[in-house]
Amino acid sequence: MKIAVLGSGVVGQTLAAKLAALGHDTMLGTRDVTALLARTEPGPMQQEPFSAWHQRHPEVALGSFAEAAAHADLVVNATSGAGSLDALRQAGEANLDGKVLVDVANPLDFSRGMPPTFSVANTDSLGEQIQRAFPGVRVVKSLNTMTAALMVDPGQVGGGDHHVFVSGDDPDAKAQVMRLLTDGFGWRQVIDLGDITSARAAEMYVALWLRLFGALGTPMVNLKVVT
Amino acid sequence: MKIAVLGSGVVGQTLAAKLAALGHDTMLGTRDVTALLARTEPGPMQQEPFSAWHQRHPEVALGSFAEAAAHADLVVNATSGAGSLDALRQAGEANLDGKVLVDVANPLDFSRGMPPTFSVANTDSLGEQIQRAFPGVRVVKSLNTMTAALMVDPGQVGGGDHHVFVSGDDPDAKAQVMRLLTDGFGWRQVIDLGDITSARAAEMYVALWLRLFGALGTPMVNLKVVT
Repeated sequence: MKIAVLGSGVVGQTLAAKLAALGHDTMLGTRDVTALLARTEPGPMQQEPFSAWHQRHPEVALGSFAEAAAHADLVVNATSGAGSLDALRQAGEANLDGKVLVDVANPLDFSRGMPPTFSVANTDSLGEQIQRAFPGVRVVKSLNTMTAALMVDPGQVGGGDHHVFVSGDDPDAKAQVMRLLTDGFGWRQVIDLGDITSARAAEMYVALWLRLFGALGTPMVNLKVVT
Repeated sequence: MKIAVLGSGVVGQTLAAKLAALGHDTMLGTRDVTALLARTEPGPMQQEPFSAWHQRHPEVALGSFAEAAAHADLVVNATSGAGSLDALRQAGEANLDGKVLVDVANPLDFSRGMPPTFSVANTDSLGEQIQRAFPGVRVVKSLNTMTAALMVDPGQVGGGDHHVFVSGDDPDAKAQVMRLLTDGFGWRQVIDLGDITSARAAEMYVALWLRLFGALGTPMVNLKVVT
């Protein structure tokens, strides 16, 4: 499949590398390819500069947000939540229309210190904001409830016996994303939380995830739903 | 120990019955004992009238919010979140001062339909509101992340292999509540999320719990933290 991953941070890198390794024709979209490759300082997570990562992953094509979206049948929003709507506007409604968009971002607000708060919560969510801004896009919220390494390799904790969620208004889009999660990323347990308004729940859970990260001292934390 | 459980709903009944069964001198506090016992209609969860429950649990004493708080060394807030601050004001600051208060309530707002939203979230929580309103009380947020039956009997799902959280500013108060959870209610795994601001995380998680309840068709749902 032709897939666009919007966002050049650790989440975008991790998802793009995995999707390319699975054989998908993957393009990573960013605001300004030239500027991104010219950066020499470490990233915000102290990761290597993007150019060093890309030298190890030449199988991932690079393009602008618009070029990546135009390339793709399925688009992943892995931009930072604060910039997601702007990035998607740059990607262009015409390039996104009718496509499945997997929204893995969280609307985190770091302006109040750590742990971050949410720029939107409780009665709205980033997933819903994106769906309202792009009504022709088939938004599926997923994978936002964990650190990047676990998204594509759930076996790294608890023998893979834990859960990932999907939220969205389009059943076919959710089914397609669930297949990618199970057949592609190796998830054994996916729970459909409901329509796109249930993205609120998946995003608000991240407040607990952040506290668990702090209390347990590792971001390699996920939850198993026990019934 | 002398314990007050404030709140006459299913949560208050379940906690009071369990605490009395454990041998604690337990008083259930309510707004108006006479009016409560006079009710003949089913409760909001379609449960039996309170008087029928109390006939089966005469070991639980009844009193006003103030009488129960005055009676107790440890107080449990099991009132509905929307009424918690008012109930605690009725209990009286002098009757609460210096005591451990286990806050199991959630600030749910049912005015927008189902699932409920939160009257406070993201940058504040009910746990923090209570701690600010009663600075001499040692507030510990706990048990608000699950249905009443699981609070006192975690073995009912997943063989008891799942988690409960505590949040609070007073380490000794948290340690006391953790002992009650483990030695009293049978919890094997308790995670200390941090100070009372981490009550935000425990409360916001309830948005996900409500969606899981809807998606899985049962309230007997809890989470196991996997690392």
